[in-house]
Amino acid sequence: MHRVAIVGGGFGGLYAAKALRKAPADVLLIDRRNFHLFQPLLYQVATGALSPGEIAAPLRAVLGRQKNTRVLLDAVVDLDAAERWLALDDGSRHFYDSLIVAAGAQNFYYGHDDWAAVAPGLKSIEDATRIRHKIYYAFEAAERETDPEARRAWLTFVIVGAGPTGVELAGALGEIANDVLRSEFRSIRPSEAQIILLEGTDRLLGTFDAQLSPAAERSLVRLGVRTRTGVRVNGITEQGVHVQTAAGESFIAARTVLWAAGVRTSDLALRLKERAGADLDRAGRVMVDEHCNIPGHPEIFVIGDMAHFVTPDDVTLPGVAPVAIQMGNYAARTIVRRLEGLPDQPFHYIDKGSLAVIGRAAGVAQFPHFHFTGIVAWLLWLFVHLMYLVGFQNRLIVFIRWGFAYFIYDRGARLITGDPGAPRTMGQADRQTRAGGP
Amino acid sequence: MHRVAIVGGGFGGLYAAKALRKAPADVLLIDRRNFHLFQPLLYQVATGALSPGEIAAPLRAVLGRQKNTRVLLDAVVDLDAAERWLALDDGSRHFYDSLIVAAGAQNFYYGHDDWAAVAPGLKSIEDATRIRHKIYYAFEAAERETDPEARRAWLTFVIVGAGPTGVELAGALGEIANDVLRSEFRSIRPSEAQIILLEGTDRLLGTFDAQLSPAAERSLVRLGVRTRTGVRVNGITEQGVHVQTAAGESFIAARTVLWAAGVRTSDLALRLKERAGADLDRAGRVMVDEHCNIPGHPEIFVIGDMAHFVTPDDVTLPGVAPVAIQMGNYAARTIVRRLEGLPDQPFHYIDKGSLAVIGRAAGVAQFPHFHFTGIVAWLLWLFVHLMYLVGFQNRLIVFIRWGFAYFIYDRGARLITGDPGAPRTMGQADRQTRAGGP
Repeated sequence: MHRVAIVGGGFGGLYAAKALRKAPADVLLIDRRNFHLFQPLLYQVATGALSPGEIAAPLRAVLGRQKNTRVLLDAVVDLDAAERWLALDDGSRHFYDSLIVAAGAQNFYYGHDDWAAVAPGLKSIEDATRIRHKIYYAFEAAERETDPEARRAWLTFVIVGAGPTGVELAGALGEIANDVLRSEFRSIRPSEAQIILLEGTDRLLGTFDAQLSPAAERSLVRLGVRTRTGVRVNGITEQGVHVQTAAGESFIAARTVLWAAGVRTSDLALRLKERAGADLDRAGRVMVDEHCNIPGHPEIFVIGDMAHFVTPDDVTLPGVAPVAIQMGNYAARTIVRRLEGLPDQPFHYIDKGSLAVIGRAAGVAQFPHFHFTGIVAWLLWLFVHLMYLVGFQNRLIVFIRWGFAYFIYDRGARLITGDPGAPRTMGQADRQTRAGGP
Repeated sequence: MHRVAIVGGGFGGLYAAKALRKAPADVLLIDRRNFHLFQPLLYQVATGALSPGEIAAPLRAVLGRQKNTRVLLDAVVDLDAAERWLALDDGSRHFYDSLIVAAGAQNFYYGHDDWAAVAPGLKSIEDATRIRHKIYYAFEAAERETDPEARRAWLTFVIVGAGPTGVELAGALGEIANDVLRSEFRSIRPSEAQIILLEGTDRLLGTFDAQLSPAAERSLVRLGVRTRTGVRVNGITEQGVHVQTAAGESFIAARTVLWAAGVRTSDLALRLKERAGADLDRAGRVMVDEHCNIPGHPEIFVIGDMAHFVTPDDVTLPGVAPVAIQMGNYAARTIVRRLEGLPDQPFHYIDKGSLAVIGRAAGVAQFPHFHFTGIVAWLLWLFVHLMYLVGFQNRLIVFIRWGFAYFIYDRGARLITGDPGAPRTMGQADRQTRAGGP
């Protein structure tokens, strides 16, 4: 039986596995986590609107009844592209005939890894609960604080990076300060909070049409968010952010800094470079051909956030869920076609549009030939995200949570739990787990 | 204005605060967490049936519109019963005229604090997610493991203590192994898991009527749980449990050991002993008089799990939610009566019965004059727990989750997240937060 190994249970890997359910193949899906995470809603966990369990689906629950598929919880630490095997962290080796690498991306601080400890990014459940801790703890600390300057620093929130994640985080923070927490404090007014969105380029939502940036900015301003473009971050500490603009250097005193400015691929891309001769771009993504293959290795597919794919129109596909889903389906279909002796077809991305929301009842929507903003974009966003959420139970619960959030301004999942300190990478946590017993 | 300070936002403290909403008093509620936790359902978070946010209600959301009440996130580190102030961890002092101490209980290992690192108890959200990590990781590790003996140790789960928490945990584990995970693994059959419930006394559910113990045991056996009474635990390591029975000493190889055997009160009880001359019982609980007061200090109420209250019939009230709720209401009422110049009335506990569930559709119910078992007890348990859950949103979501769990055997919140290692006490975490910035 043809053996397909899939690395990663995100959008790319999960959709590939599901598309292989009737294929004459033994499918092995390897992930470091036991669940598929619906990344586009992670910012809602970070802001207390949803609970982690509501945007995650256990991989075994999704794939358990798919008889040709096996799931393993482990990390891929190495591979041999000539002998065609993967080495896992527990020491085992797994041979494959086809390999689909979909290990995604992680936070990237452009060489300033020390910033990770003070300015968490938003890639994992742990990141999200850390951010949730920081946001809600800041209001609690401000309520206790008697020194006005210290209080102001607790009530200042800086978000670095104004892509969709940064914009959505900033919008949610605006809602929290102005609506959700209203009338809950006695010494502070949460609406005094300053929310500052910093962007290095000259506009918000750089991947969207330029005409949408002013609309997004207006929606943010209405929520009390200050946006600053053309700003370079020189340093981040527990006390605030050192920024550089055309006007010179300055310091923003802020106890809460969130990072939405950069990602790089999984370290597995480096293994593919060493073992399979893959070329990487500057963000560490693997250059793939029109079949999502590494040149010279038609049996290795690299998809999703890990892939640098250039369309015939010379557009590099962005690291978003629709691209990963379509690539996952494509890789599975190509493997099946080859087993049936059919010729390869090139991957063709169908752009179904991009969406972002900014707080309540406001959003931007962009389609290949038109775009619009406002409440319709927001409703479309709600609908699309509910549709793609895995699991009917989660869909129902998220729908209810959103209803409460909309009508009574509540965010029921705003718990301060866990340790807000520096994150551990999953690799380390895994190894500790294994060495010490979980 | 009369100043009432309440320490702790559990059942006792929250109900006291709510009962004071119309009182001519300034109410200050201090808790180390920003949420009220519905402890009776914590085992459902630990077993992946519910998410943390679904059994917790932000204290500010519950009390935000209660104008005479202020909430502070902090830990009480000291008090002066003569000058009547509390000292908080941030260095501030708060004067009171009446004090309600409801700081609850924590896990207790009878002097073996090193067991905490390998055998988590179940008192906090962090405890619950640690246990969830351990349970589901064990099945994942067993799936990977090729050595039969090592695999058996991963598939052996020991629960120490057969009170309601231990029995409910064991029942949920039985369901997970036999129903929830069925058909999700390829190398193991989850139903091979051994679930062993150890109890030091001679029967299960010692606080219930003796006639209910055999019924509970039958329900557990049906779920594949082995119960062993009269067992003393001599040691717990990452490899298993050393036990002592009448027949001698033996070792149970098990990678997952859960602790449900003992609690002691918050350290605040020691402060009350030093500063207010309180007497403590062997479990550290504060001896209180018929007004829930410390003798000699009519302005200090100690309620809930922290109180050792003996009824006129010479019964010591157990550390359960209904006792805490009634004491909270009583303390608030007594403070108001005194402000109105009315004489004190003694606290009178109304026993509305006790309930415990054992897996699906089985439970035990005990009332003052009768008791019963089976599906009716289970349904009653569901109804009562939904009723008392704080917040309509949570009630609706938990209801939906239970529906899915019942009809499709799903546990949607079974994520392996965070660090399963040794817990930090909240005090330490708080101080780190403050020192290092959250």
